[in-house]
Amino acid sequence: MELIRNIKLILEFDGTYYAGWQKQKNITTIQGTLESAIKKLTNEEVKVIGASRTDSGVHAMGFVCNYNTSSTIPADKFREALNSKLPADIVVLHSEEVSMNFHARYNSKGKKYIYSIQNTAIAPAIGRNYVYHYNKKLNVDKMIEATQYFLGNHDFSAFKSSGSSVINNVRTIYELNISHSEKLIQIEVTGDGFLYNMVRNIVGTLIDVGIERIKPCYVKTIIDSKDRNRAGKCVASSGLRLEEVYY
Amino acid sequence: MELIRNIKLILEFDGTYYAGWQKQKNITTIQGTLESAIKKLTNEEVKVIGASRTDSGVHAMGFVCNYNTSSTIPADKFREALNSKLPADIVVLHSEEVSMNFHARYNSKGKKYIYSIQNTAIAPAIGRNYVYHYNKKLNVDKMIEATQYFLGNHDFSAFKSSGSSVINNVRTIYELNISHSEKLIQIEVTGDGFLYNMVRNIVGTLIDVGIERIKPCYVKTIIDSKDRNRAGKCVASSGLRLEEVYY
Repeated sequence: MELIRNIKLILEFDGTYYAGWQKQKNITTIQGTLESAIKKLTNEEVKVIGASRTDSGVHAMGFVCNYNTSSTIPADKFREALNSKLPADIVVLHSEEVSMNFHARYNSKGKKYIYSIQNTAIAPAIGRNYVYHYNKKLNVDKMIEATQYFLGNHDFSAFKSSGSSVINNVRTIYELNISHSEKLIQIEVTGDGFLYNMVRNIVGTLIDVGIERIKPCYVKTIIDSKDRNRAGKCVASSGLRLEEVYY
Repeated sequence: MELIRNIKLILEFDGTYYAGWQKQKNITTIQGTLESAIKKLTNEEVKVIGASRTDSGVHAMGFVCNYNTSSTIPADKFREALNSKLPADIVVLHSEEVSMNFHARYNSKGKKYIYSIQNTAIAPAIGRNYVYHYNKKLNVDKMIEATQYFLGNHDFSAFKSSGSSVINNVRTIYELNISHSEKLIQIEVTGDGFLYNMVRNIVGTLIDVGIERIKPCYVKTIIDSKDRNRAGKCVASSGLRLEEVYY
């Protein structure tokens, strides 16, 4: 009988040219590309379980996934071996053998995302795939003031895009920090889990605060309303990066 | 008689998908793409003069160029009008009318380049087109010690790649500064002019110092030798960015 092992990978990827994580027929996805690379290496048809279903154009620095294999390749060698089969925009940072019980999605206890806004009059050429360009001057102090209302345990229905079948919309945000330089505003958010497009809808709402269309304290009203129409628009996927997954 | 004006542009571009600045038949270049955009706008066949002939894959934040036009478009409106015709990886940051005598190349008094080395064990996915990945640990203190020998007026023949018809190889380097974080080493060099591949050959030599293959003071010997074979290799174009042109 062959030995089945459970392998955990940590990936960095540039999502620009991918239709997100989840495998789809005739469309290039991260999962599909990774499964093909594993097949080239081990000749196995594996199903890779990802910590989250990132959207088209979203990037990751610490995406976690796992798969079962009967290959005899030492677990830590999968990193280098897979990198030799993968395109340059998907990189395996780490590979290890984990307990058969480990499930990248179900076991996740939280995630950290970073959203980058380039707040300049003219759109950038360099690095344009890693930011959302916003040309109206944003009041970052107001945006920072608004962050407090998102913290903690709330029903985030107002920040969930349609197209999700999730029923329980209660999530906890542990941290929401905004740092900024002359050109770049970075929003770092850590929570136990996120609804469909939740980070991008939160950022769209913070932009409404930044252009002083709404007051910082109005965020509380939006959350309480559970009304998607009150929150800001869903900002571009290019600015979003999954930074870390916690277990 | 129509009025001819001289227009100066400042460009930002991501050179990843271009065969450098200079127009070539059947090959996508920055100059060719810009001239097409001007033609779409004014229906004129202009020749754009660039401050330098950047190589394939090299980027720019402050590339200066100029062209003559008889169009009546206000000079400062060329910026927005050209941006509407250009692809997202070439952006006009500024446009203005200048004296008919202004020549972007001949009038240039100096340039600043920045070279970025990502010094990590594993190659990056995010931002990979904007850095040179080098996986052996570099001793940055030694590299900084070596910078002093490049400063000033020297015959830089040892740092000129073949394929250049330039006869006078004497150039002046005004500043050469190295800054670094955990992952990234940035080398900023300002001079009155640069020979073919000179910045990339200097960086290759600084890497030889960083891996302690040569001592910092050996840079003086390399310069004095005027021998290209003694200097380091020409590092990847992806890490290079023309930052500013001085007049």
